[in-house]
Amino acid sequence: MQRTQIKKYRIGKPIPTDSVVVDVELEQGAIPYFHTDEPAKRLTFSLEKEDRVYGLGETIRGMNKRGWIYTSKNADDPVHTEDKRSLYASQNFILITSDKRSLGVYVDTPGVVTFDIGYTKLNELRIDFEDFDADLYFVEGESPLSIVSQFRHIIGRSYIPPRWAFGFGQSRWGYKNAEDVRRVADQYEKAGIPIDMIYMDIDYMERFKDFTVDEKAFPNFPSFVEEMRGRGIHLVPIIDAGVKIEDGYDVYEEGVKGDFFCKKENGENLVAAVWPGKVHFPDFLKDSAREWFGNKYKVLLDQGIDGFWNDMNEPAIFYTEDHLKEVFEKIEDYKGKNLDIWSFFEFKGLVGSIDNNEEDYRRFYHEYKGQKIRHDKVHNIFGYNMTRAAGEAFEKLSPDKRILMFSRSSFIGAHRYGGVWCGDNQSWWSHLLLNIQQMPALSMCGFLFSGADIGGFGANTTEDLVLRWTAFGIFTPLFRNHAALGTREQEMYQFPSKDVFKHLVELRYALVPYLYSEFMKAALEEKMLFKPLAFEYSDERSREIEDQLLLGDSIMIAPVYKQNTTGRMVYLPEDMKLVRFRAYDDYDEEVLTKGDHYVKADLNEVLVFIRKGGVLPLAKPADRTTGVKVENLNYLCYEAKPEDYKLYEDDGESRL
Amino acid sequence: MQRTQIKKYRIGKPIPTDSVVVDVELEQGAIPYFHTDEPAKRLTFSLEKEDRVYGLGETIRGMNKRGWIYTSKNADDPVHTEDKRSLYASQNFILITSDKRSLGVYVDTPGVVTFDIGYTKLNELRIDFEDFDADLYFVEGESPLSIVSQFRHIIGRSYIPPRWAFGFGQSRWGYKNAEDVRRVADQYEKAGIPIDMIYMDIDYMERFKDFTVDEKAFPNFPSFVEEMRGRGIHLVPIIDAGVKIEDGYDVYEEGVKGDFFCKKENGENLVAAVWPGKVHFPDFLKDSAREWFGNKYKVLLDQGIDGFWNDMNEPAIFYTEDHLKEVFEKIEDYKGKNLDIWSFFEFKGLVGSIDNNEEDYRRFYHEYKGQKIRHDKVHNIFGYNMTRAAGEAFEKLSPDKRILMFSRSSFIGAHRYGGVWCGDNQSWWSHLLLNIQQMPALSMCGFLFSGADIGGFGANTTEDLVLRWTAFGIFTPLFRNHAALGTREQEMYQFPSKDVFKHLVELRYALVPYLYSEFMKAALEEKMLFKPLAFEYSDERSREIEDQLLLGDSIMIAPVYKQNTTGRMVYLPEDMKLVRFRAYDDYDEEVLTKGDHYVKADLNEVLVFIRKGGVLPLAKPADRTTGVKVENLNYLCYEAKPEDYKLYEDDGESRL
Repeated sequence: MQRTQIKKYRIGKPIPTDSVVVDVELEQGAIPYFHTDEPAKRLTFSLEKEDRVYGLGETIRGMNKRGWIYTSKNADDPVHTEDKRSLYASQNFILITSDKRSLGVYVDTPGVVTFDIGYTKLNELRIDFEDFDADLYFVEGESPLSIVSQFRHIIGRSYIPPRWAFGFGQSRWGYKNAEDVRRVADQYEKAGIPIDMIYMDIDYMERFKDFTVDEKAFPNFPSFVEEMRGRGIHLVPIIDAGVKIEDGYDVYEEGVKGDFFCKKENGENLVAAVWPGKVHFPDFLKDSAREWFGNKYKVLLDQGIDGFWNDMNEPAIFYTEDHLKEVFEKIEDYKGKNLDIWSFFEFKGLVGSIDNNEEDYRRFYHEYKGQKIRHDKVHNIFGYNMTRAAGEAFEKLSPDKRILMFSRSSFIGAHRYGGVWCGDNQSWWSHLLLNIQQMPALSMCGFLFSGADIGGFGANTTEDLVLRWTAFGIFTPLFRNHAALGTREQEMYQFPSKDVFKHLVELRYALVPYLYSEFMKAALEEKMLFKPLAFEYSDERSREIEDQLLLGDSIMIAPVYKQNTTGRMVYLPEDMKLVRFRAYDDYDEEVLTKGDHYVKADLNEVLVFIRKGGVLPLAKPADRTTGVKVENLNYLCYEAKPEDYKLYEDDGESRL
Repeated sequence: MQRTQIKKYRIGKPIPTDSVVVDVELEQGAIPYFHTDEPAKRLTFSLEKEDRVYGLGETIRGMNKRGWIYTSKNADDPVHTEDKRSLYASQNFILITSDKRSLGVYVDTPGVVTFDIGYTKLNELRIDFEDFDADLYFVEGESPLSIVSQFRHIIGRSYIPPRWAFGFGQSRWGYKNAEDVRRVADQYEKAGIPIDMIYMDIDYMERFKDFTVDEKAFPNFPSFVEEMRGRGIHLVPIIDAGVKIEDGYDVYEEGVKGDFFCKKENGENLVAAVWPGKVHFPDFLKDSAREWFGNKYKVLLDQGIDGFWNDMNEPAIFYTEDHLKEVFEKIEDYKGKNLDIWSFFEFKGLVGSIDNNEEDYRRFYHEYKGQKIRHDKVHNIFGYNMTRAAGEAFEKLSPDKRILMFSRSSFIGAHRYGGVWCGDNQSWWSHLLLNIQQMPALSMCGFLFSGADIGGFGANTTEDLVLRWTAFGIFTPLFRNHAALGTREQEMYQFPSKDVFKHLVELRYALVPYLYSEFMKAALEEKMLFKPLAFEYSDERSREIEDQLLLGDSIMIAPVYKQNTTGRMVYLPEDMKLVRFRAYDDYDEEVLTKGDHYVKADLNEVLVFIRKGGVLPLAKPADRTTGVKVENLNYLCYEAKPEDYKLYEDDGESRL
């Protein structure tokens, strides 16, 4: 590792984020590469026509981020259309690359940063700061991969989940009780579709209170957990950021007593509202509060739970008590008036902007490293520190066994404590493509255990979309079908093509030895799990391919993401061996030459391309990942031998 | 024309729409092709795997409509995401086609109809009716084109605009006065970019009152119109559906006096609110009101105006007086309560659903063909009849000269009176693709004079998106750059690439002889102007190509609709001659063989493929369409001679 190629500069007085864990000496002098405009709080970089810009982790639009403007300001916004600037995450690492040069830039600040990457001017990259305070890391290297590797080194090792988390998980907001959950397990078993996890969305809790279980819906929860574990299924409950205000509720009372909640200017605890109704937010930035909240996961660990997902941790705010009061006062004014059309729009805007209101983020404070800091200044690291609370606690509460953890909101640093899912997407074909395009950027930022809600969370899905999305999802570490309350039911068994789903999920299970091996290598050797073609091939065409991915070292995948198609064009940067799977044990193979190929891929088919020298080991699938053995693998090879493949093996649950 | 291939059946007692103008004898007996389920108000058709379904005019998603559910219920909804079911238009003509069979189906009813085209079940087409009343036309034919042609014959000749309407037009919501408009003209002239039209959005009116002009903003309007005409520029004002309620405003007072407005159950005129504040809606379905409103266009015709666009005619309703009162009463309840989270959502939903509220469409009535009919039963033909009001009036008010007219809302039948634009789209790359995919469906339904807001109406655009969209827009009859108030300015001169824009628009003007000829042939000979490849080529690959179009008889186009690309894959169903334009007089030519090709197309390049036997005439461009002559054309040919091309010529303004 050539550590000397990373240079650190500082502007202003940045609030630390703890995202970088390796000491990098601070350079003096002017910021290199960029033009600095301090009054404008702006850094400017001239883009050449050939430059491509990658990174930013979980964001909208394509792999090459040129031509849009992205704002790091974690947002609870489920409508991920092209014109949005912020999603749930802030992952401020970009890589500028062309034939001539490559440069990685990490902008380390918890504040609001805007990356204008050829939006205002096609050939200009601007980084605009709300506060001109940040640590800047510049990473040079001979290739994109070496730059990413150096960057990954300084931010520390990525979170490693238990091996069973590479199984399939079914989720839906709306499973109300043990019977609903049992029915999901029954139906998957009846259809013969492998499954390792059933997720529990907010309804499992007693009135949406963190670390409670609704006893009417789930009587004797520990025995239910045990029952499901007996069937080989892990229950994975959700944990939300807000703690319900309710007398007698221990978490609430402890939080008040321990002074663990976020405070308003006047010192009172902020009252916001989320699913439980009125809540306080734990001050995850305060060491004592983070430790306290992390230890609460023990309540569920003690009942047999070994995986969680953290949600609503941007934090999402439906309203604050103070702001809602102001709104109702203003409505009173409108009511009296003969509303003209502009007053009407004001009135509508007033009510429409109650949730996730910018002003609310300026109403409360954290105690962070001994300082009182207004929330908006550290907004982007709130969710990160919730995940950190859990991750740090798990190391103590479960010192031997890995615990599954992933989060909606994130920031670089959080990758050490958990994975992410790509938030509340929609049942859109374009979001299947978005999912494909987000994966390499997440790899760049260290978020290896990731994936999107397969089939789409919001909106109604269709059978063919779930099929195609599943055919891609079998390759993502987090492999979960999830949907929102009120949308069309989309568990695989809801559709006539149960057999196709069975074959797809079995193929996933057959791929587990490869996926787990490549994941572990990526985590332990600071490599990317998903790569754009352009990171390994230098031909002109590869640079613009945004719908194919290199996955690990052996294969390229080319998912079908358009409706009503029975094939797609695939670009091969070199000769490769196409394996067209209909099932783990039903496939045809064909060597295709470098260049463009139209490749048939019907709704029941999955395209895998083995690279030159590549080996793809396939296991015999099983109903659960525990049944997937690494003995007697079937090795598919292209100009390689089975023994060329380096399988990663461990017990799948011990910490390392 | 083999008229015998159209069969008409009737279910229930349909309200007539006047969309079909040729008498087709009513067949007796059971509905053919479909299974009829009268209690469920449903017709069902079994789709085979190979069937593709085209049509429905201006809707979302791809050319092949399979895999989604579309509801004909004209909607003022600017967020055209994949999951929407309704846009501004109801164009109930579909075509089911495969190697084995082709069938056209026109569902003639003004009511709400849902086309579930393989959404609920992949292999089932369901047509669901709110009221089981409709005339059904079944069209058989040896090919999709013959079916479309027969259908187009019975719905009557498509609207023909003046030739100058094939020029470029600039629009923006926010041009406030004559100075703003002059500046647009000046800037286009300064940049040397041809232009024929400047559109006037709602701000030109006096307090948004139809058929008024704000005298402060546009002093001596007739002389301003004349001034602009002296520069060769047509001003094209917007007309909205709602008439402002204001004492002393002649249109309002005439409407009340003549009993021309839509009424509530109790006989009072409905009070709704749109841009002007409180308005009444003219009852366009009532003959006397339609005639009265149509004649009002004379006010502007007399001032020299010769083109209009009709807007807000779904009709859009920001609120009705009665409903708003109810809302404020309900808010009073919430105010008192300690809002729990569900009451909070109710409250938000209550306010959020004030505009375009379903209930409001049941609050008012029409007098249609002598009957009192509640609005929701004839909702889909409201905008159509607004356009008809104008079109019928123009025939009398301007018997010799064609008037430009296009509308937002539409229904089949409206295609005889005007064109359409594709409504309030967004500055999304996916909407450029949507624009491409909508064009053939609009051709099928007779809406030949059409196009989308280039660069995107809502959201902020980027220079490259405007460039690529313009490079496609030069082929659409309606060629307009338009944007919403508050979005980034996107007139071509706002960007550094002025020269590229100049070359693109000049190319458009060079194409006018071809575009006008093909348009006129399509109108007069009931042909499609834009065709999916599959309508002319029977190979398997052509069936799934949804991002290339046949335009007229000579050419195929393959627009670039992805960001950060310098070329694209193009499928050629036969050998063709590629012409890569950088300007009308700067291009390279190359014959490409049948099959897949990666074709370079940088931001300044336009790809045109001349088909075998095809001839593409190119004129010398001019600043205005009037300067584009059909003498001394440059003929680009592929296995054809210039004289093989049949140019359509007329004076470009006389009615025919």
